Amino acid sequence: MEQRLTIITLGVSDINVASDFYENKLGWKRHGSSMGDIVFFMLNGIQLAIYPVKELAKDATVPPADIKGFKGFTLAHNVRSEKEVDELIASLKAKGVKVVKEPQKAEWGGYSSYISDPDGNLWEIAFNPYMNLDKAGNVVG
Amino acid sequence: MEQRLTIITLGVSDINVASDFYENKLGWKRHGSSMGDIVFFMLNGIQLAIYPVKELAKDATVPPADIKGFKGFTLAHNVRSEKEVDELIASLKAKGVKVVKEPQKAEWGGYSSYISDPDGNLWEIAFNPYMNLDKAGNVVG
Repeated sequence: MEQRLTIITLGVSDINVASDFYENKLGWKRHGSSMGDIVFFMLNGIQLAIYPVKELAKDATVPPADIKGFKGFTLAHNVRSEKEVDELIASLKAKGVKVVKEPQKAEWGGYSSYISDPDGNLWEIAFNPYMNLDKAGNVVG
Repeated sequence: MEQRLTIITLGVSDINVASDFYENKLGWKRHGSSMGDIVFFMLNGIQLAIYPVKELAKDATVPPADIKGFKGFTLAHNVRSEKEVDELIASLKAKGVKVVKEPQKAEWGGYSSYISDPDGNLWEIAFNPYMNLDKAGNVVG
């Protein structure tokens, strides 16, 4: 199996609330292939989709989710300096985004914070001095 | 916030079981930055990490997960034909991978199946005739 990913789909409880978060808080543009209850965002070579969680379970032919709190996974968005972490978190907070963990030094040598989307999906906003990103934000090496 | 992702981290119950799945069933190579209880896989411009779920909750400063069954998200790995879906699923099944949904025509016009990793993280193996992938497997357009 090739070592790559195409789409991450987050199951959400209300597609309008979730799309408001990704479009109006994070400032992302939805992709033209979005239709009905599924909204796609083109990221760096992959897509993020948001879709009603009950429909997502049905598509996977698994029983609906019974999720309270942490969902057992995180998504990370790395930036290029500690200052950029601070600035991004400040701007998100000003838009009403929930900050779960304030920016702080991490044990692994970086600088890290966490925000939550309306469904409790966690995004780590981090700077890792040991990781190289190219201009498009792809991990190099 | 730039429209991109850096890392997906899957919280796992046993790092050895999970790394066996990704290395020996999917056939992926771990990245040199892996250390201790965290294993990284370099994908197409992003990384997938596996990390003990209790440690992941601690890092995000949230209560530990109470997850039974579906975790409310899926990861998709798109290939380039229906035949390739069938072949990949057959080869994974031969290695003992749990197939949650056998390959079949999907309502949205594609061809789709789902497998599960040892922690119940769902991977959709799909062909989407409306999506273009470049040689590296990145979504185009």
